[in-house]
Amino acid sequence: MNLRIIILIFILVFSRGNIIFSQVNDIEIKHTIKKFYTSALVNGKCYEWLGHLSKQIGGRLSGSLNLERAILWAEQELSEIGLDSVWLQPVMVPKWVRGTFEYASIESSPGNSINVPICALGGSISTPFSGISANVIEVRSFEELDSLGFENVNNKIVFFNKAMPADLINTFDSYSKTVNQRYDGARIASKYGAIAVLVRSLNLSLDDFPHTGTMSYGDLPIRERIPAASISTNGAELLSSMLSLNPEIKFFFKQNCKNYPDVLSYNVIGQINGLKNNNKILLVGAHLDSWDLGEGAHDDGAGVVQSMEVLRLLKINNYKPLNTIRVVLFTNEENGLRGAKNYAELSYLNNENHVFAIESDAGGFTPRGFSIETNNEDFKKIKKWKPFFRPYQINFFERGESGPDINFLKTKENILIGLRPDSQRYFEYHHSANDTFDAINKRELELGAASMVSLIYLADYFGL
Amino acid sequence: MNLRIIILIFILVFSRGNIIFSQVNDIEIKHTIKKFYTSALVNGKCYEWLGHLSKQIGGRLSGSLNLERAILWAEQELSEIGLDSVWLQPVMVPKWVRGTFEYASIESSPGNSINVPICALGGSISTPFSGISANVIEVRSFEELDSLGFENVNNKIVFFNKAMPADLINTFDSYSKTVNQRYDGARIASKYGAIAVLVRSLNLSLDDFPHTGTMSYGDLPIRERIPAASISTNGAELLSSMLSLNPEIKFFFKQNCKNYPDVLSYNVIGQINGLKNNNKILLVGAHLDSWDLGEGAHDDGAGVVQSMEVLRLLKINNYKPLNTIRVVLFTNEENGLRGAKNYAELSYLNNENHVFAIESDAGGFTPRGFSIETNNEDFKKIKKWKPFFRPYQINFFERGESGPDINFLKTKENILIGLRPDSQRYFEYHHSANDTFDAINKRELELGAASMVSLIYLADYFGL
Repeated sequence: MNLRIIILIFILVFSRGNIIFSQVNDIEIKHTIKKFYTSALVNGKCYEWLGHLSKQIGGRLSGSLNLERAILWAEQELSEIGLDSVWLQPVMVPKWVRGTFEYASIESSPGNSINVPICALGGSISTPFSGISANVIEVRSFEELDSLGFENVNNKIVFFNKAMPADLINTFDSYSKTVNQRYDGARIASKYGAIAVLVRSLNLSLDDFPHTGTMSYGDLPIRERIPAASISTNGAELLSSMLSLNPEIKFFFKQNCKNYPDVLSYNVIGQINGLKNNNKILLVGAHLDSWDLGEGAHDDGAGVVQSMEVLRLLKINNYKPLNTIRVVLFTNEENGLRGAKNYAELSYLNNENHVFAIESDAGGFTPRGFSIETNNEDFKKIKKWKPFFRPYQINFFERGESGPDINFLKTKENILIGLRPDSQRYFEYHHSANDTFDAINKRELELGAASMVSLIYLADYFGL
Repeated sequence: MNLRIIILIFILVFSRGNIIFSQVNDIEIKHTIKKFYTSALVNGKCYEWLGHLSKQIGGRLSGSLNLERAILWAEQELSEIGLDSVWLQPVMVPKWVRGTFEYASIESSPGNSINVPICALGGSISTPFSGISANVIEVRSFEELDSLGFENVNNKIVFFNKAMPADLINTFDSYSKTVNQRYDGARIASKYGAIAVLVRSLNLSLDDFPHTGTMSYGDLPIRERIPAASISTNGAELLSSMLSLNPEIKFFFKQNCKNYPDVLSYNVIGQINGLKNNNKILLVGAHLDSWDLGEGAHDDGAGVVQSMEVLRLLKINNYKPLNTIRVVLFTNEENGLRGAKNYAELSYLNNENHVFAIESDAGGFTPRGFSIETNNEDFKKIKKWKPFFRPYQINFFERGESGPDINFLKTKENILIGLRPDSQRYFEYHHSANDTFDAINKRELELGAASMVSLIYLADYFGL
């Protein structure tokens, strides 16, 4: 037997051993993932939790009594699943209050008016007590506003009516292309002498729900700030068609929202300590606050209960993680991100090592995969896990943004991931009174939690 | 320059040419598919069509006036999109009528009863006019019924209470595992002396909607046939828990459904003639009939309007197919499949060559891909088209069943395909009063139509 043959046999035996070893591993991994999915679908708790959070607590804007209730409830529920520790992390958050519901009408001719559904944008100032009545100038971009200039805009209400483009497959891409009119519209229109802005709701459907969301005056002096409201898509279509018939019609609206001084709030945190690498943290999170309209069921009650469920599924399946697995329910994502910023700052000061974080903040719909934010090497590593998700029809593993809260934890080495559910229905509910528990499908919600716990498990198992 | 170098250069030039040629093709294909998706999402008509079919016409069981209306409506709409021909294909179909709504109650003790929602199963006989009141024996399988035997079953109502398993990812797999109790339950229970059967609704949710569906007495003599009804999942849970407390409780129900002689119905057919291979047919289809409960929005109004939309999208994008592209709206899928059988028989007699057929009959939810029924060679060919669907998040290309109607067209050479939408919500609506237009999402529906027309286009372009 010559040397080459010996080497060949050696390689064969060795590699065969490897294959057997890796097959055994694969079987164990597949079995564990199957267990998580089955638990989530058969013995899940997240749907019941979301029912409570949506129906018994409801919308929970920063600074509201409801958010305080939600914080105490989440702390209590996390305590009951037997984590190693559960605590509240204090942080000051903005307090903006809508006040009485808004009122608006299109005045087609003196004495003739049609009511339309509007709501104040988050952070907006109120109108004068008697409301605002003015001519309307409709635009579909900041460029159009620029070209109209001061003489055409002064003393008018600027109506930003760019619709979310329907032809993009991922509705978050449509949102990205239109959200600037909501966020920056008032700041920019003010420079041209506008006395208020009205923004088409960021909703791909035509319906009667106005959608709120955060806006900013940037560094605009207080006296130059103008009220900003959102009009339902049906209202926007009506206003636009009436303007095309008669550009001289007036729009009347009234809102009495108000900014108050910051108030104390909390991130809710719980964890299972790692058996081996206690200092390495794998985080799963979502934001506990929501807008005040609706129940914050999809945004982001779904993410909250899925994140809680991840730790519960680890516990009830008696999984002992090698690394520390932590759930964080961030406060004040919607209008300030203070919870996330504070969490990241403290974690930096305390030298905490977040090797991995996943956020669910895109609705409780059927999960399609993961958006992955990391270096090339780790991206490749995670893509290799894709076959484990094949039986669960999870096949989106792409580079992309993770989530607004965990984003502050980004380092050169760590891995940030966003759960990516099917996006088709999200913007029907987002930031509106339509975002209620009955828009949640139990199985879709549970599949999201199962997908997150499975990814966390793989990250824990393979080490990062 | 020696021969090897010459050959090498020759290969390089030749293959490069090939690559360039194939890249040009790819760009054209991608562009065309993008056009179809954009048309469907921006200028789609299927949602409006489905609104009419669901709300203005409604449930359309074989033999009903509503189905006749739907046939005339579909013929009219297809005529208006400018097809080369539209026609009705006559076929006799069964006529089963529910009669007045069913009534049922659990009699926990004399004088105490609780109403529960039931509905007759399609094809069932009525109860006697005064209804049936009897003890109940609960089982979860035919094996359990066998083991109980005549002495335990005789003169009782058999209550089939096997729940759809929640841990399977594809809900159609859960359906397959439980549908036999609905279809064969009465036939089998009758042999053990049962006087009626009550079947747990095939629904993964707990709610108050009874779900109907077809059942069969097989070759059971008329005098041995017993009434069969479906009970809502909540009702089934209640009945089961009451039986566990007191096996002697009685169940009362009454239904007066009836089978009538067959009546005339029609398949609705339209086509665009092929420019080159007029004799090769690419079929897209769905079934126009539905159960009488609800509006038949997901089952199968969605498939109907998506199939119609496929031809409309070809027309408005001015696509001239090489092969004949035909839409078939089958009649009587739900309780007889007579439309499909008749269509296949006539097509065989007329030597029609259906090289390709796709059916949409799994709800109007976000499309996930295609279930493909063909030989190895053609399966591989179709799998190669997968990258064209990547931008649209269509990634399920697997072997599997196609659709109940096109199934009769199967040959050794042709390709049958089922559109596979996300299945999580389907059985909440299926065959119940819950299957209404408001459960339809416009974009999800449109994406299904766009996916079908894109596949048909590829089949036409590449030839089969």
